[in-house]
Amino acid sequence: MQYDLVVIGAGPGGYDCAVHAAGLGLRTALVERDALGGTCLNRGCVPTKLMLGATASIEELQAQARIKVARGDIAVDWSALQNRKDKLLAGSRKAMNARLKSLGIDLYDGHARVAGPGRVEVSAETASVVLECTDLVLATGCRPSSFPGLVPDGRAVLDSDAFLDLTTMPESLIVVGGGVIGLEMAQAAHRMGAQIHLFEALERVAATEDPDVSQALQAIFRRRRWNVKTGVKVRSVTTENERAVLVLEDDTQVEAEKALIAVGRRPNTEELGLESLDVKQRGPGWVTVDEHLCAAPHVYAIGDVNGRIQLAHAASDQARYVARLLAGKTQSTYAPGPVPGVIYGSPECLRVGTMVEELEAQGKKYAVTSSAWAINPIAQAHAAPQGFVKVVWHKDRVVGITAVGHDASRFTAAATIMVRDGWTKEQAESLIFAHPTLDEALMHALLDE
Amino acid sequence: MQYDLVVIGAGPGGYDCAVHAAGLGLRTALVERDALGGTCLNRGCVPTKLMLGATASIEELQAQARIKVARGDIAVDWSALQNRKDKLLAGSRKAMNARLKSLGIDLYDGHARVAGPGRVEVSAETASVVLECTDLVLATGCRPSSFPGLVPDGRAVLDSDAFLDLTTMPESLIVVGGGVIGLEMAQAAHRMGAQIHLFEALERVAATEDPDVSQALQAIFRRRRWNVKTGVKVRSVTTENERAVLVLEDDTQVEAEKALIAVGRRPNTEELGLESLDVKQRGPGWVTVDEHLCAAPHVYAIGDVNGRIQLAHAASDQARYVARLLAGKTQSTYAPGPVPGVIYGSPECLRVGTMVEELEAQGKKYAVTSSAWAINPIAQAHAAPQGFVKVVWHKDRVVGITAVGHDASRFTAAATIMVRDGWTKEQAESLIFAHPTLDEALMHALLDE
Repeated sequence: MQYDLVVIGAGPGGYDCAVHAAGLGLRTALVERDALGGTCLNRGCVPTKLMLGATASIEELQAQARIKVARGDIAVDWSALQNRKDKLLAGSRKAMNARLKSLGIDLYDGHARVAGPGRVEVSAETASVVLECTDLVLATGCRPSSFPGLVPDGRAVLDSDAFLDLTTMPESLIVVGGGVIGLEMAQAAHRMGAQIHLFEALERVAATEDPDVSQALQAIFRRRRWNVKTGVKVRSVTTENERAVLVLEDDTQVEAEKALIAVGRRPNTEELGLESLDVKQRGPGWVTVDEHLCAAPHVYAIGDVNGRIQLAHAASDQARYVARLLAGKTQSTYAPGPVPGVIYGSPECLRVGTMVEELEAQGKKYAVTSSAWAINPIAQAHAAPQGFVKVVWHKDRVVGITAVGHDASRFTAAATIMVRDGWTKEQAESLIFAHPTLDEALMHALLDE
Repeated sequence: MQYDLVVIGAGPGGYDCAVHAAGLGLRTALVERDALGGTCLNRGCVPTKLMLGATASIEELQAQARIKVARGDIAVDWSALQNRKDKLLAGSRKAMNARLKSLGIDLYDGHARVAGPGRVEVSAETASVVLECTDLVLATGCRPSSFPGLVPDGRAVLDSDAFLDLTTMPESLIVVGGGVIGLEMAQAAHRMGAQIHLFEALERVAATEDPDVSQALQAIFRRRRWNVKTGVKVRSVTTENERAVLVLEDDTQVEAEKALIAVGRRPNTEELGLESLDVKQRGPGWVTVDEHLCAAPHVYAIGDVNGRIQLAHAASDQARYVARLLAGKTQSTYAPGPVPGVIYGSPECLRVGTMVEELEAQGKKYAVTSSAWAINPIAQAHAAPQGFVKVVWHKDRVVGITAVGHDASRFTAAATIMVRDGWTKEQAESLIFAHPTLDEALMHALLDE
């Protein structure tokens, strides 16, 4: 079979790339060995949001209970949630499949192996086929990492994939890794009543965020009586008597019903035949790309696998670019607008653009304006007054915005626009913000009032 | 006492006007006969949001219960909520007071009566004082209307002020008036378990919104088993045996524990001495202003009282303009950016810019693109798949955006920017929207995909 384009991997990057390329007239094939939608739909962003959505009432209730305005009991049926998840995800995959068909994209269900330039072998259980193509896009994503001593065993020690498939929530949970995955899953478990023990090797949780955000998160988690340890090395986590036992380097031992290992992710690049191409890889196998997202002549790598940024919407944006590039609609280098990052839960964290640490490292001057959640009536209405928004300015223009607090993701799109377009204070002044909304926290920070 | 500026009324318009004017160097007095913060803080936007916030857990739980993922019981202590409200509002008023002091603004607690150009008499219980000023700003706001047969009696028939002071929620509620006030309060009562009977004289609820939004709202309310009657005339609502009894023009009778009359509002312009000024009024007394928000030489009217738009943030924007005008910082006419309007609750409604009906009335060509809540993973996570977002285009630029659905207000700021700046499809394409967020419903509508 001869194609203009073969895309390996049908996550947000690969799927969107195939869809856009086909829309632009390229004869396109998409290869996926697992499920359409990739990690994001099946084992990542979407399932965690279903967990957080299903337990949102618990969080809202607990907040009102703390101020003695409400009380009650809520039972979430985790097994029913899993059934619902399976149904919703199947529906999404079905819709994706239909869209591929309608666009004339051939979907190959099997394992892809590159057999040299312009040649991909797809092997399924019973048969295999060779696809020939002008261009090849690698969008194979990544999967949970493990380290010596931190090896999920599918019993009490789980990776995020296994955690998302639990049909009951544990009464106590060890979380190793305080990044976005560990934090979102810990929050879902916390809402379900689990005692949380959180261990992070770096000096702070959410280490990719502004340090003030990490500090606010830690304060909120400790107020919830989580056991949060940062700057600690975990020696091992093992299953003993069907419970998880964690041992720190100082021999401290912590036991819980389950442990979640969320210490990073590694690229899916083994068994892909990349040795047959002139592709450079780094670290555990991330595919190095140039400023056209090109890894070798006629070979592109998009999404998680190129090691740039592990976010579905970043992959989708890269996908759109490469599709346009291959269809001859653009020749410019890949220069995306700012990519917002969100950590969901209660509180939420939002970050877009350049943060203070980065400007300091570059020796650039900057100014910071901020405002607090506490004076916002909507934050008060949800009994969630902890949080802030911080605007970073360089040469009197907005270059970065970060926020932490109840529903902080709600002004993600507005913040992304302000950073993308480098707003001045005057541009912010002429925007009418609705009252009362949490958006006014952003307004107050922008206007420094 | 001699001032550059006397502002009558300390709601969002009057307070913000005084604060900005003083900040710009004007010697400013502010007169308020009731409470700092006006209707918005004390009897409007803020108290309703506290009610909706306190009951948010119920709404989230009911949504998950409908799909059998969660069950439970939540009791909101309405009397505790009222105590909390009183405390929070007192705190806000105290902070406002401190800000006035810090800016050197004299606050007069009493009833203001204009005694001719540049002359305001303030009478309090024990004394009165005359203020002289160069300029006068009327920001006296408005209050609930009543009509023959629809007269709140403080027993079972309430206006919105009395509704907000209830210490228990009724088991059944008649709501007369399907505008924003009636709808938000009905939603709070519904969450507390009240059977809702909603009567609207116009052909649809939320008649200021796009007809499709009204239709979506009505469908959602009917699914909740509200008794919604539109296009009906109410003859009377009275208290009988301590219950509310409503009679329609066709003699149909409906009984409930309480009735809320929310049939519009009227300006606070009586006893203000406006006859001593060359001010034009219309309808029930709205003060007519020109394109500088000027009602007569050296007399300005801002906020609800000028009858333009009843929204706190519109009043604040007018306030800022008039302060700048009087301080000589601008001479241009008042040309605000688009003013977003939000109806809170579940679902929420958002509207900003020009809607289809208006363009049709003007004989202008337009295009509409839209997307549905149903395919959004966050809407699914909250088991709230009803809703849509609709983008109105004129000459290939965004001129209006409206949305209805769970958390639809969350992209208010982004939508306001897009309308203000008349975005093209290309501008939308280059914005990276976070995944998964409800913002993607806006993205899909913009990109028409």
